[in-house]
Amino acid sequence: MSKKNVMVGQSGGPTAVINSSLAGVYKVAKDRGADTVYGMLHGIQGLLEEKYVDLSEHIHTDLDIELLKRTPSSFLGSCRYKLPNSKDKPEIYEKIFDILNKLEIDSFFYIGGNDSMDTINKLSDYALEKGSKIHFIGVPKTIDNDLAVTDHTPGFGSAAKFIGTVTKEVIRDGLVYDANVVTVMEIMGRNAGWLTGAAALAKCEDCEGPDLLYLPEVEFDVQKFVDSVKEIMKTKRSIIVAVSEGIRLGDGRYVCELTDAASQVDSFGHRTLAGAARFLANTIAKECGCKTRAIEFATLQRCGSHIVSRVDITEAFQVAGAAVKAAFEGETGKMITLKRESSDPYICTTDIYDIHEIANVEKKVPREWINEEGNYVTPEFLNYIRPLIQAELTPIMTDGLPRHLTMFVKR
Amino acid sequence: MSKKNVMVGQSGGPTAVINSSLAGVYKVAKDRGADTVYGMLHGIQGLLEEKYVDLSEHIHTDLDIELLKRTPSSFLGSCRYKLPNSKDKPEIYEKIFDILNKLEIDSFFYIGGNDSMDTINKLSDYALEKGSKIHFIGVPKTIDNDLAVTDHTPGFGSAAKFIGTVTKEVIRDGLVYDANVVTVMEIMGRNAGWLTGAAALAKCEDCEGPDLLYLPEVEFDVQKFVDSVKEIMKTKRSIIVAVSEGIRLGDGRYVCELTDAASQVDSFGHRTLAGAARFLANTIAKECGCKTRAIEFATLQRCGSHIVSRVDITEAFQVAGAAVKAAFEGETGKMITLKRESSDPYICTTDIYDIHEIANVEKKVPREWINEEGNYVTPEFLNYIRPLIQAELTPIMTDGLPRHLTMFVKR
Repeated sequence: MSKKNVMVGQSGGPTAVINSSLAGVYKVAKDRGADTVYGMLHGIQGLLEEKYVDLSEHIHTDLDIELLKRTPSSFLGSCRYKLPNSKDKPEIYEKIFDILNKLEIDSFFYIGGNDSMDTINKLSDYALEKGSKIHFIGVPKTIDNDLAVTDHTPGFGSAAKFIGTVTKEVIRDGLVYDANVVTVMEIMGRNAGWLTGAAALAKCEDCEGPDLLYLPEVEFDVQKFVDSVKEIMKTKRSIIVAVSEGIRLGDGRYVCELTDAASQVDSFGHRTLAGAARFLANTIAKECGCKTRAIEFATLQRCGSHIVSRVDITEAFQVAGAAVKAAFEGETGKMITLKRESSDPYICTTDIYDIHEIANVEKKVPREWINEEGNYVTPEFLNYIRPLIQAELTPIMTDGLPRHLTMFVKR
Repeated sequence: MSKKNVMVGQSGGPTAVINSSLAGVYKVAKDRGADTVYGMLHGIQGLLEEKYVDLSEHIHTDLDIELLKRTPSSFLGSCRYKLPNSKDKPEIYEKIFDILNKLEIDSFFYIGGNDSMDTINKLSDYALEKGSKIHFIGVPKTIDNDLAVTDHTPGFGSAAKFIGTVTKEVIRDGLVYDANVVTVMEIMGRNAGWLTGAAALAKCEDCEGPDLLYLPEVEFDVQKFVDSVKEIMKTKRSIIVAVSEGIRLGDGRYVCELTDAASQVDSFGHRTLAGAARFLANTIAKECGCKTRAIEFATLQRCGSHIVSRVDITEAFQVAGAAVKAAFEGETGKMITLKRESSDPYICTTDIYDIHEIANVEKKVPREWINEEGNYVTPEFLNYIRPLIQAELTPIMTDGLPRHLTMFVKR
């Protein structure tokens, strides 16, 4: 009888709950009779170098599963490797399938965002074309929430919870001195403003929330921004602004390009964006003569596993389980999606969808969920997002710090 | 019979647990028979404008006390007002004492760092000189841990716990790609490196910890830093560096002055420091040709009340209670200190000390707690710090976010 072996990988930027999906693939695959669950190291790029591990050598107990769920960043390592077309580089595909066949892989799972779904897309097409029986299923993951079809994406809820929490704290901090101060927070999101909009979650009974939000979906105008700040300053001393790293001017340039900050380009051609908040804070300091602060949430917003949404980390596990079930039942070339049945009460199930409709597509914040002036989100946006940040999953603390599951620690 | 009224204020930069001290003053003063507990708004500067509140109008229940303890930033607002000498500006002192006498204040508490202790120093001296019976007691607070005499300072343990936690997460995040990446984290601390040293807490069973730490106590050499990074890069792909915002070159200039970032000066003459990490990351990018990241922990490290040390938040309450007890028993011109009886098991009590020996003095990290090369802390440093980050005090969550107690929320 042939083996039922599984290969799983993680790709793209990490999230606070990406390892909950890895735990989900491992646990559900084992429970459903998988023989060996292999994890490729650093995604498809590592696999091409035959770098993989037998996950059972690293996950021994149920406590390990719980630790893995709470471990930020990609346990297996990640990559930003763009798989070329099989027509252009058939040898790469041959190599991948040689390795998979040698390991008797039945099902292949890739946990990632739209770039990663492109990989599943290409591999599943190639498999069908060549008559391979390997099943390829995508497991959605991205803090950016920009995957198509799915209601939302695992990783987003926890990043949104972190951003809402920290925004509340920054707002309180901004009220400390009896002086005008403008704080500009820079939040991740290259083309989609889901995370920047999440800063508005801070607006609740005990907090006024941020004053201005700028999403990449709306063209940014520096002068209009300065005017808005000046207007608010007439009645408020501490002003809090959240901007997406990806806001652009009318001429298409990123606001961060107005600074002298070095910028780098990754293998998908994405430029590293940083510096928009600093530039805008400096602009306000000059124009208004008041104290300003620039705060980049930076990496913290994607690795903040010490405060995660329980809804999110649970769904991250569930989509992975659904992926295993689908593959084991014969599906391929699909991605698991989340399907919201109801917002109040929040009811969400998993579904499955053709990967061709998802790969490389970016889902942006609908224009009607941003106000007319383009500087805040609407109540509909917040109603959509609020259920995704509910409840917590407490870290397992050891000697004062959260404990993680890790593969290799040199000391 | 005369009233036993209390005045309490908060001064200087906030911490995650400064309101636990405010809660301690309020609760213990009330329990010990205080009539009215007034809170000055924005410290002594607000008091001079007769801005104060009756705290019982804002704290109604034990739940309010619990919320106040968990609220970051200064509930009453803060200031950076340097009280002039009474000889130079007697009218300011007359005004303060007029207000205090009118309110029948018996005891005056100021929660702050060494600048704030200067205020207690001057007011208590003036009171003795003029025969006033008002008691002035300092309640220590600062994330910087740079107050003299006291073993450590409330606020430090929680900031250290936040830094240790986030450093672990950043280290994990840095391992994601199979590529060389140097991450430079910038941590608060103008002249004292206690917080930067706290990044080394991340070094434990499941984490290698940061690779290099640079404290302001040791002269910084850019070339030596680059050489150290290149040396480590021979055997490691992801390198994590923590630098204090206040590191200086041999000629006395701050490293952040090597950038073009705007810098501002507050009323104590302290320059706003920011940009050292960005400068060093850019330097490494040029010198080593690898990807680099700069992460400023910024305000988050002083307002991160969603992850506090229970030891710290409890001690913040206790020093405040001890201050009330001391004042009510007739003490003045003193600051409450923390006295460590033992590290293992950790036993710490409160004591009281002459404010003249504390005001304006900065306690730095002893040179022998930094290694010879000046790029890491010793085990003794970590043994000192580890008990201060133990245990947690869970936020009270409402609708997915931590709830705070706030005075004025316009919506």
